[in-house]
Amino acid sequence: MLSKNQIKLITSLKQKKYRQQHGLFVVEGVKTIRELLQSNLELHSIYTTETFNIDAKSEFLISEVELKKISFLKTPNRALSIFKIPKSKSIDKTQLIVALDDVRDPGNLGTIIRLCDWFGIKDLVCSKETVDCFNPKVIQATMGSITRVNICYVDLIEFLSDSELTSFGAFMDGNSIYKIKIPSEGVLVMGNEANGISKEVESLVKKKISIPRFGELQETESLNVATATAILLSEFRRSSC
Amino acid sequence: MLSKNQIKLITSLKQKKYRQQHGLFVVEGVKTIRELLQSNLELHSIYTTETFNIDAKSEFLISEVELKKISFLKTPNRALSIFKIPKSKSIDKTQLIVALDDVRDPGNLGTIIRLCDWFGIKDLVCSKETVDCFNPKVIQATMGSITRVNICYVDLIEFLSDSELTSFGAFMDGNSIYKIKIPSEGVLVMGNEANGISKEVESLVKKKISIPRFGELQETESLNVATATAILLSEFRRSSC
Repeated sequence: MLSKNQIKLITSLKQKKYRQQHGLFVVEGVKTIRELLQSNLELHSIYTTETFNIDAKSEFLISEVELKKISFLKTPNRALSIFKIPKSKSIDKTQLIVALDDVRDPGNLGTIIRLCDWFGIKDLVCSKETVDCFNPKVIQATMGSITRVNICYVDLIEFLSDSELTSFGAFMDGNSIYKIKIPSEGVLVMGNEANGISKEVESLVKKKISIPRFGELQETESLNVATATAILLSEFRRSSC
Repeated sequence: MLSKNQIKLITSLKQKKYRQQHGLFVVEGVKTIRELLQSNLELHSIYTTETFNIDAKSEFLISEVELKKISFLKTPNRALSIFKIPKSKSIDKTQLIVALDDVRDPGNLGTIIRLCDWFGIKDLVCSKETVDCFNPKVIQATMGSITRVNICYVDLIEFLSDSELTSFGAFMDGNSIYKIKIPSEGVLVMGNEANGISKEVESLVKKKISIPRFGELQETESLNVATATAILLSEFRRSSC
């Protein structure tokens, strides 16, 4: 049986304020929970319809009706767990880093975290306005990659001012990525879904790059920030192959 | 005022069966509707809280409450319209074509249509199991690109058997796209979100390609089909630059 306090805690973790206050976040679905249990993340508690065979203090067997009550998903997937938010590690400033300037959509951030994991990017730097990576929708979209990418929320202006790496920013009018020489390290800056990279961050970007558009009509507005990140990360990595 | 019949028609168009029966589909949001009004698509009717200044026979001014009632969105965006489903055009078999084998997620199909538009792919060929491109969630994700890409639902086995173009299929164990020579025309085959390309289609694919994974742990399961399509289309296009 779920206690009132447990329900209250879980429900509160939908909000960033309470995630930060408690230092906890929610992960749902048996597969992702299993993956996280094998990572360095510290488990707080697990509410499940089938046992995971972990210590009895942390595990609470509940009914499907109870799970439906606490789940953030339309179709709950057998278990909901709470993990402790890990401390950010220090950033390795000698490698390729991805920096996000005010990315707001949880699905986009989740996809970008998964891309960083695929392309071996260790550090993802986010402006303070970027959506919280422990937002349940982000966690759902990362498919476990959240455990393998170090995500830091920083003052992006300060970070870029201090960085010795060349910064590359994705713009509509930048130089074609097929024509410029791309190094294997640097900071790749991606902007907000609607407004792109902000003026202040733009002034700190050393090289403006762009993915050429091939449609005859030239009417497609822009690529989605996650698909653009996919293409640009691939370009950085192909340069080191 | 909305009539019962109008409400019934609009609501029915959420389902593929009725879209096909009526030959109609729903588009929401002022911006996308404006874009579609300027395309070759034929308008059936528009239900809006602000006039579009089009002929009175097709336009119905309604209240926000009424819009909320008929909208497929959580947050309706001032107008809902119905357009006629266009006839598929014949496929140009001398250029780069994208073929989808059972892609099920509407968001993924929408993103892939937008990518085709960006990269100047005129023809998108879908297996009959692929999600319907006139599904409201697909339309929402395409951002108007649906008017610029010719989408055909075909028997993919037959299509690939008849095709004279070299077919490239995305697999986990294919040849690195950074190392093989990619031509500027061909058929790029992308598979289902969970199962990839089916065995039957695989047997017809001439070249298996793959996006190398760079993470040290090699644990990221796979790239999302839309982000993988983004990277592969970029590779095809860079080869013609």
